[in-house]
Amino acid sequence: MYQYDDDSLMLHTDLYQINMAKTYFKEGIADRRAVFDLYFRKMPFDNGYAVFAGLERIIDYLKNLKFSESDIEYLRTLDYEEDFLEYLKALKFTGNVRAVEEGQVVFNNMPLVQVEAPLAEAQLIETALLNVVNFQTLIATKASRIRQILPDGQLMEFGTRRAHEFDAAMWGARAAIIGGFDGTSNVRAAKLFGIPPSGTHAHAMIQAYGDDYTAFKAYASTHKNCVFLVDTFDTLRSGVPNAIKVAKEMGDKINFLAIRLDSGDIAYLSKKARELLDNAGFTDVKIIASNDLDELTILSLLSQGAKIDGWGIGTKLITAYDQPALGAVYKLAAIADKDGVLENRIKISGNVEKVTTPAKKDVYRIINTNTGMAEGEYITHSGEQIDETEPLLMFDPVHVMKRKLVRAFKPVELFKDIFIDGECVYTSKSVPEIKSFLESNLNTLWEEYKRFLNPEGYPVDLSTELWQIKKDLIEDASNKTLE
Amino acid sequence: MYQYDDDSLMLHTDLYQINMAKTYFKEGIADRRAVFDLYFRKMPFDNGYAVFAGLERIIDYLKNLKFSESDIEYLRTLDYEEDFLEYLKALKFTGNVRAVEEGQVVFNNMPLVQVEAPLAEAQLIETALLNVVNFQTLIATKASRIRQILPDGQLMEFGTRRAHEFDAAMWGARAAIIGGFDGTSNVRAAKLFGIPPSGTHAHAMIQAYGDDYTAFKAYASTHKNCVFLVDTFDTLRSGVPNAIKVAKEMGDKINFLAIRLDSGDIAYLSKKARELLDNAGFTDVKIIASNDLDELTILSLLSQGAKIDGWGIGTKLITAYDQPALGAVYKLAAIADKDGVLENRIKISGNVEKVTTPAKKDVYRIINTNTGMAEGEYITHSGEQIDETEPLLMFDPVHVMKRKLVRAFKPVELFKDIFIDGECVYTSKSVPEIKSFLESNLNTLWEEYKRFLNPEGYPVDLSTELWQIKKDLIEDASNKTLE
Repeated sequence: MYQYDDDSLMLHTDLYQINMAKTYFKEGIADRRAVFDLYFRKMPFDNGYAVFAGLERIIDYLKNLKFSESDIEYLRTLDYEEDFLEYLKALKFTGNVRAVEEGQVVFNNMPLVQVEAPLAEAQLIETALLNVVNFQTLIATKASRIRQILPDGQLMEFGTRRAHEFDAAMWGARAAIIGGFDGTSNVRAAKLFGIPPSGTHAHAMIQAYGDDYTAFKAYASTHKNCVFLVDTFDTLRSGVPNAIKVAKEMGDKINFLAIRLDSGDIAYLSKKARELLDNAGFTDVKIIASNDLDELTILSLLSQGAKIDGWGIGTKLITAYDQPALGAVYKLAAIADKDGVLENRIKISGNVEKVTTPAKKDVYRIINTNTGMAEGEYITHSGEQIDETEPLLMFDPVHVMKRKLVRAFKPVELFKDIFIDGECVYTSKSVPEIKSFLESNLNTLWEEYKRFLNPEGYPVDLSTELWQIKKDLIEDASNKTLE
Repeated sequence: MYQYDDDSLMLHTDLYQINMAKTYFKEGIADRRAVFDLYFRKMPFDNGYAVFAGLERIIDYLKNLKFSESDIEYLRTLDYEEDFLEYLKALKFTGNVRAVEEGQVVFNNMPLVQVEAPLAEAQLIETALLNVVNFQTLIATKASRIRQILPDGQLMEFGTRRAHEFDAAMWGARAAIIGGFDGTSNVRAAKLFGIPPSGTHAHAMIQAYGDDYTAFKAYASTHKNCVFLVDTFDTLRSGVPNAIKVAKEMGDKINFLAIRLDSGDIAYLSKKARELLDNAGFTDVKIIASNDLDELTILSLLSQGAKIDGWGIGTKLITAYDQPALGAVYKLAAIADKDGVLENRIKISGNVEKVTTPAKKDVYRIINTNTGMAEGEYITHSGEQIDETEPLLMFDPVHVMKRKLVRAFKPVELFKDIFIDGECVYTSKSVPEIKSFLESNLNTLWEEYKRFLNPEGYPVDLSTELWQIKKDLIEDASNKTLE
């Protein structure tokens, strides 16, 4: 009932985008060059940094942006006029996209993606871009947050069954790896993104055989690498002793890698299980925990001295349970006038944080050349030159007296060209590359920004010129409503 | 990097499913008939009922279940043996599926989907089934919960940008409509599922034109039906007055349907905007509110006498923000012995609610024939006959003294045949049909189960026979660990 041979993602947008595109088309401004910024206003999970992800999916989406026959057919049933439908039929993405790279540490109120494109095109892609970045960045950030707590633990993403449908499972697994996880249970994600799959057996297998011993023996007879799930009936009286029994019987025929605990008092059980394993000579066998784990339960387990070497994280990671939406937005910053000259645009709000920053921007990270560490982000009016020979004044754009002079620094431009005139010019990185890129980025962040609770706020500053542009436009708008 | 011409959904599963399938195959029990129940243990959002959704997606998934060439290629790189790969290559779904229909009101601890299939097949599909039902049921339930609070308001699903990737946006929109919403902003979902799309314009259009008046005029000149978003600069001093001005200028050329408020003090602004509209003679023009709304903010707005006719619900619905995971599970209930006779199976847990209910089941809703209302669910050992001429004893399976005799009743079987021997025998319903099916189901539920806060717990009872089976198996298992 819902299947078309030519289903496209072009209609993966909000209806108002199409209605606005129609107005722009009819009014002859659909091709005016417009600049939009994609950014979020509030740090997810109150973390000190976020991890950008989603670019790979956006590139694929934009490359294939095209209304299919059945899309046009469908829009015809909504009474759009033929001239507009003809226009849509011919539409493809012809604009520029600049963005930070996946695995970049990012912060609230800095542009992550900049789209400079004909107004109608830039508008039509808004919804999809937000949908992708909002989810993938959220999961990569959550994963990185967990990795900060467990720098050495084995971390496995086990959330597919609780992910919000198929795409979230697959792209969420990828984002988890980017954020620092070691593997995923999702086989499709493992195949598509070249990441390590992980998993051995479930309670169902124990139930199918009727008891732990028979089930473990069957698994061990058919798999070299064994991780036994020990809590189906009774962890300490049945699960662990039978795992040990089977391992002894099988000897060198198997690699007895680990046991997994999935219920009960994991802290207690892990300590007791460790004793049982050690006493049986299996001191190298690891203990893996799963069961609704998140940052807090992990910290609690660590503080109780739980003997856990590996962690399977499902629901709480893949749904970003404690904050399941990032809230990124996509705002018009400038639009060409009839002569093609960019005019800066602002959106006012009673809420100071919601006032947009106008103008086309460049985004720099200021690296202190004495320490090698990041001093903050520095957002300029596009084209502004930063004089590296002079000390740089950095100030908070809201609380302007929070300021500092940075004397020895290097500005690192964070935007990369992704599309130029509709052509993709970016060479995608592999997931392992992105993951190690994140690690190198995190190395330039002071610990204060990386701690789990109450991190310091990282400076995201505007250049004096950009700050002045914003101030002037706020004043203009304010004057207008007084008239 | 992640694209294959023959990408399939067969690998949309956890690796452990494939590893278990391998053990079953090698041990010669892959074809043993197994019965699995899919159910959840805890009511989502502490609501009194849930709304089942996801069947359409499951049907499509099972119909197309097949390892592609590249799937097999990939598994080969993981060192699976050739005989097992040959087995997988030939695998398709050959089992039976029974399920409640989409739009059915459902409760914790009742089976929603029953899979009876060769063990390996039933195991391989677990992850996908859970992934689909968990998400879609969650969103349909959340939507229905909002609908209960607003029986008459226009409800629009606006969440695509915050949905967890593409699939969640599309299937979430469908689930929202099933739950009682009137329309969605997601055009692809509207096209694919035949549901009404909704939306006019965003702040960006106002910014593009530079002021409210010019933007509204442009929109009104190119669209018959107009809903003006009035909060870009100043709602009461610019947005609403300019909407009125344009509407007066355009006269009959447009249908001035509504204004939309998306920020600020919506209660206050809606009352003031209502006055402005009424004073200008636009008493029929509606006021639509959006901006992070959920059940609580809606109730708060209603209690403040806000003048709102339509509601755009985004983030909080599509992510199920206050509880983003349903937690449904899929548990083995019985498995054939070597002679093909079903043996009942149980999974024990220290946590009473986590102990599974064994055996193949039938699921009935007991309708009181005097009131026409539901008395509770009654789950039997499959094949048990219910004697309608005798009073029926219904008792709580945990607190057995909570019991009642129902004298005049009709048992309504809730499971429909979906697949028989791998063939789909179910005729899918359209979304409007499913939506009105939900309404008729809700009509058989007493108000106590439908209220927003602290609803009564609806009885989900076991027949005496099934209860006894469970009790005996718990005792067996308990005795074993004492040995």
